[in-house]
Amino acid sequence: MVELGRNARVAARVLAKASPEAKRTALLTAAGAINAHRKKILAANARDIEAATAKGISKAFLDRLALDDQRIDGIIAAVRTIAELPDPVGTTIAEWDRPNGLHIQRVRTPLGVIGVIFESRPNVTADAGALCIKSGNAVILRGGSDSFHSSQAIVECMLDGLHLAGLPVEAIQLVPTTDRAAVGEMLRGLDGNIDVIVPRGGKTLVARVQDEARVPVFAHLEGLVHVYIDKSADLDTAVNVTRNAKMRRTGICGAAETLLVHQDVVATHLKPIIAALIAKGCEIRGDAGVMALIPEARPATEEDWRTEYEDAIISVKVVDNLEAAIAHIEHYSSHHTEAIIAEDAAAVEKFFNEIDSAILIHNASTQFADGGEFGFGGEIGIATGKMHARGPVGVEQLTSFNYRVRGNGQIRP
Amino acid sequence: MVELGRNARVAARVLAKASPEAKRTALLTAAGAINAHRKKILAANARDIEAATAKGISKAFLDRLALDDQRIDGIIAAVRTIAELPDPVGTTIAEWDRPNGLHIQRVRTPLGVIGVIFESRPNVTADAGALCIKSGNAVILRGGSDSFHSSQAIVECMLDGLHLAGLPVEAIQLVPTTDRAAVGEMLRGLDGNIDVIVPRGGKTLVARVQDEARVPVFAHLEGLVHVYIDKSADLDTAVNVTRNAKMRRTGICGAAETLLVHQDVVATHLKPIIAALIAKGCEIRGDAGVMALIPEARPATEEDWRTEYEDAIISVKVVDNLEAAIAHIEHYSSHHTEAIIAEDAAAVEKFFNEIDSAILIHNASTQFADGGEFGFGGEIGIATGKMHARGPVGVEQLTSFNYRVRGNGQIRP
Repeated sequence: MVELGRNARVAARVLAKASPEAKRTALLTAAGAINAHRKKILAANARDIEAATAKGISKAFLDRLALDDQRIDGIIAAVRTIAELPDPVGTTIAEWDRPNGLHIQRVRTPLGVIGVIFESRPNVTADAGALCIKSGNAVILRGGSDSFHSSQAIVECMLDGLHLAGLPVEAIQLVPTTDRAAVGEMLRGLDGNIDVIVPRGGKTLVARVQDEARVPVFAHLEGLVHVYIDKSADLDTAVNVTRNAKMRRTGICGAAETLLVHQDVVATHLKPIIAALIAKGCEIRGDAGVMALIPEARPATEEDWRTEYEDAIISVKVVDNLEAAIAHIEHYSSHHTEAIIAEDAAAVEKFFNEIDSAILIHNASTQFADGGEFGFGGEIGIATGKMHARGPVGVEQLTSFNYRVRGNGQIRP
Repeated sequence: MVELGRNARVAARVLAKASPEAKRTALLTAAGAINAHRKKILAANARDIEAATAKGISKAFLDRLALDDQRIDGIIAAVRTIAELPDPVGTTIAEWDRPNGLHIQRVRTPLGVIGVIFESRPNVTADAGALCIKSGNAVILRGGSDSFHSSQAIVECMLDGLHLAGLPVEAIQLVPTTDRAAVGEMLRGLDGNIDVIVPRGGKTLVARVQDEARVPVFAHLEGLVHVYIDKSADLDTAVNVTRNAKMRRTGICGAAETLLVHQDVVATHLKPIIAALIAKGCEIRGDAGVMALIPEARPATEEDWRTEYEDAIISVKVVDNLEAAIAHIEHYSSHHTEAIIAEDAAAVEKFFNEIDSAILIHNASTQFADGGEFGFGGEIGIATGKMHARGPVGVEQLTSFNYRVRGNGQIRP
């Protein structure tokens, strides 16, 4: 593993200087190779699925693991999209002149080596690899053992791309899953050869990474997402947005988990919103105010306000006012994403200014909490920490910067 | 200490929402209070100096510790400058529209609670306090025991400012130095109540903080700063800039420690540069190429290329070409600041693109590596890490950001 870290560092130095065209070519070639080697990838995936099935793995797990032609098309499209993004490295973020004539630029530079620890989703291999290469970084990928053959087949295609573009193939390294201590070593940073760790997977994995990592981590442990219906909310917007925020896909981190309704609109808005949710098959867990109006609701317990269901269940609470909604969110939120449905601009400003979450949304679904939807062309994850990257982590968030100062002989008095 | 952390977190929530005017008033009032309480501060400082002298502390240490009217003027001016900086909180860093009509803004928000661990420089109390308040953060200050009374007298003035501006006085807390375990507890993050640690002091302190901290650290361990004289360098610029970079102040982190000279200009440039350094009292440690020309030079050992002298000594090496200079710097540098003296724009671009240090300078002194000189209005330190803050850490670097998304009912298909 230490050797692998050293190789990654050497490759990262080369990647940092690579031309935008070389990186683009590497990724477009990789996408082409994935297309050309479909059969091989599907055969490797079949091998993984067979072994996983024999182990008696869950249906949800198998669904994440399984590839088919359509999913491979999706992987190819994602790599191509990332290939065609503007190259972040070398772009000037800010520049200014000093009274003494010095011209100062803040310029994006790569971070170095990214460690990605993921569970059995083969597409992460391509996504994460492409995002790291585009941003001039090397990447060390450690996937779940159940998807190892699929990941390996995809990585081979990525390496074809690097090789044909004249870039070092050590820029993408897949850790053999037979090495059980690998994750622990990565979390300790491989002797200073990993600059940041990105975990992709369930809460157990993320919690372990956040707990043990001695290097920075870009991650979110939970997406305990709130939707607040203000007294100024338009009814149709409230119904449509809440239904989409909760039920479009219940398992993603941007899915709503708790609904807060201003007491002034309980009489008009609560029933239609809840009816829309129930019609989509959502279970309702309410406080006393909700229980009084919604016969289908079960009573919510304290635990419900703390629970990311990742399922067709929502906790619903009536709040006295905007302040109470903000207080509830600040107390229970995982600081991922929160939405306000309101027509009153002052209420929106207050919500935006007083809630400290990575993403705040007005009159739109919380399921837009996604790098692709933000226009980043992809994301390696969503971060809820406040350091460096926050919210969707795309190619720009995988860069650092330095200062470049130009003078004509200035000395300091 | 845990109580102190909790108080800081509560205060940070209030500071995050404080108006720009309240923060400005707090700092201007604090500056006024420092002015009004000069005698008290000087008396407290005299008490610290007396105790430190009795302990037999070094002259350099006493110089850092001692306050006089002029230094207090400097402290007041620094706090006033920070007070009048543009408020970073709430400013929009970027904004864009999505095809579906969503408008996305990336807006600066405070980081939360900053822990500052510093040695016996009383001015850090005011500087660090002012920078943290201006950026909407709470701060926990742990100063050296030798400056405790001085720091306490200054903090009392800062608290006057917070109090009179209606802000919570827990936004600035000074840890009693009688609590010996305090530093260790701060490095473990006070139960999640410290978001970042900034060490201000010597290498022993910084090394301990970087080694033990379980929260992010903004710091530099060393400033092993290089000046490279390209074959295209103008002689006067090379002489003036090198002399200033090394000898203006030898003890600061931006002072040059190693000089690299392109072999093509050794005959013309080396002697005048070295003569200018020697005339200022600098000791020269050279490689064979230097020894052959400079009788006053002592031979440099491998250790010299790794040494931040922080003194009137410079190591000097002749390099074959720009590539060799870059290779030397990438191998030995602490990635703080490096300068190139050159007239050839292509050489400058190569130097800027291939060296991964926080600050790269062309034709100007490395002693400009300073937040004030960058126009930041002050700095809490200089960071050589690549995460979040890099280079001078001013009020903007003490902020995070979040995303604010505005829609008109958009749902995700």
